[in-house]
Amino acid sequence: MNIEMIRAAAKRLDGHARRTPLLNSPFLDEIAGRRVWVKPECLQHTGSFKFRGGWSALSALSDEQRAKGVIAFSSGNHAQGVALAAREHGSSAVIVMPSDAPALKIANTRALGAEVVLYERGSEDRDVIGQQLATERGLTLIKPFDEPQVIAGQGTTGLEIAEQAREVGVTKADVIVCCGGGGLTGGIALALEAEAPDMRVRPAEPEGFDDVARSLRAGAIQRNTALSGNICDAIITPQPGDLTFPIMQRLCSAGLTVSEDEALHAMALAFSRLKVVAEPGGAVALAAALFRTDDIQGDDVIVTISGGNVDAALFQTALERFPIS
Amino acid sequence: MNIEMIRAAAKRLDGHARRTPLLNSPFLDEIAGRRVWVKPECLQHTGSFKFRGGWSALSALSDEQRAKGVIAFSSGNHAQGVALAAREHGSSAVIVMPSDAPALKIANTRALGAEVVLYERGSEDRDVIGQQLATERGLTLIKPFDEPQVIAGQGTTGLEIAEQAREVGVTKADVIVCCGGGGLTGGIALALEAEAPDMRVRPAEPEGFDDVARSLRAGAIQRNTALSGNICDAIITPQPGDLTFPIMQRLCSAGLTVSEDEALHAMALAFSRLKVVAEPGGAVALAAALFRTDDIQGDDVIVTISGGNVDAALFQTALERFPIS
Repeated sequence: MNIEMIRAAAKRLDGHARRTPLLNSPFLDEIAGRRVWVKPECLQHTGSFKFRGGWSALSALSDEQRAKGVIAFSSGNHAQGVALAAREHGSSAVIVMPSDAPALKIANTRALGAEVVLYERGSEDRDVIGQQLATERGLTLIKPFDEPQVIAGQGTTGLEIAEQAREVGVTKADVIVCCGGGGLTGGIALALEAEAPDMRVRPAEPEGFDDVARSLRAGAIQRNTALSGNICDAIITPQPGDLTFPIMQRLCSAGLTVSEDEALHAMALAFSRLKVVAEPGGAVALAAALFRTDDIQGDDVIVTISGGNVDAALFQTALERFPIS
Repeated sequence: MNIEMIRAAAKRLDGHARRTPLLNSPFLDEIAGRRVWVKPECLQHTGSFKFRGGWSALSALSDEQRAKGVIAFSSGNHAQGVALAAREHGSSAVIVMPSDAPALKIANTRALGAEVVLYERGSEDRDVIGQQLATERGLTLIKPFDEPQVIAGQGTTGLEIAEQAREVGVTKADVIVCCGGGGLTGGIALALEAEAPDMRVRPAEPEGFDDVARSLRAGAIQRNTALSGNICDAIITPQPGDLTFPIMQRLCSAGLTVSEDEALHAMALAFSRLKVVAEPGGAVALAAALFRTDDIQGDDVIVTISGGNVDAALFQTALERFPIS
């Protein structure tokens, strides 16, 4: 895993992934007490940064692999990112999802051209089903984060952050990244190490699901005790990846955690002040920038909004609970 | 008014106005039966394209004029665009607003550094108050649309549309623009005449407030009979401008109108499929692209989302009334 892989991925993504803008608002700056710059990957194709990794992985396969197709396990953003990337490569994707996944997510993934294979969460083993399908059909597994070409794709976000920050005169800042398994965080950290070495990357996680923050403190991989029961579901993973953790350990500063209410509050502020739709897990970095100001240094802070795939009902909860006045 | 003024405005706006991206979604394409490209000016500074015109006007003033300050009449997007542009130019802005304007809009305009002067809509004459202030203090009036440098600023949106459409291989399309007084529509039409002559610009308006569509049909300026009573308030003006109408008459094709419900439906789809926040008036062009498909020609349609300054309550109404399934 190195910067050259990210640069190569950026070339493959050029003209296919969206170059999301860098947003800001004087109202957010005032809350944070410093300038807040927002990289809204909710505006990426399929509504999250995962399209970058999906495209990077698909475009790195051989023609033969692409002809046979790919497989992914996901009920969320990775599923949609891989599905669209596969379709646009003329390949095919099988997405293995739990049968109790939200109907809209299943429908969206199918609408993006994927074959959805459902399994019973209680009685069936996802990995066994996936392995069997992969073997039978010769499918290539696209892992959600612990996969070099996926990390390289997510890292292209970091190349853009470095360039766009430079355009507004910012070369030194804490860069807070919504963090699940560490694909986006590790990829951005590698990109910034090369392109903006005075920036320091900091993972943001939901309180109680801060495996990365604890792993960084302990110097070794730590697991989450629970894997559900938080609205930031998109970024909850059992533990940091075997590939991503050493990158984060070498390059990241201390993690930040926020409450569910703080994530909802950040969603409401992204609505009113930036006009973008953030999902709860996609709002944790913004929440950290706004509500953990004492733990951040410098005149500027940069955050990702990693995704915007949120149900209308939950979005309305955020707007109702945190009216802007 | 000519293309050189727009190109000059683009130079002045460079590095100050945001270059908003060009978004799309396979889900919107499917509804429309053609490819739909969206220019989300809701992501512009202050949440609407009005910042472009405000910046263009402020940057075209003499140092002496800027030192004395500017004045604008607006309770909405023009107020915020001018307020922020004035502050960033080290100038000052007086914004004349009705005393019954929403408290949040007054607060936002003040927070952007403007002096807000309130008047009683029933008993006081806005123009008299404004003229008196302008004379006493030597303020320069920045009109919302019928002003060459404002039109030039809004027209920079068209330069970006031409370039971004070319990047995705589109040179021929109907370009539907949310239309009030015609500053954005006329500016985009002039830009595209020079940069993408195979595109044709079409104003979109709310049903019953279609002064521009009727004026284009009649070949002469027509007025709206009512000026309130529609949720698309941001784009309701008495009639097209004396400067903007001849431009639109020369360059625009037939106008399109949509209902309030169609605007709300387009807002809900912009939320779920593009992850951006559109206000009702900002959603009429997207609504026309999605729900007036028989009146549009070609494989591609381009639309503006002109603004995103919408109250949470009305946004929630859109999400509730038009759930995505």
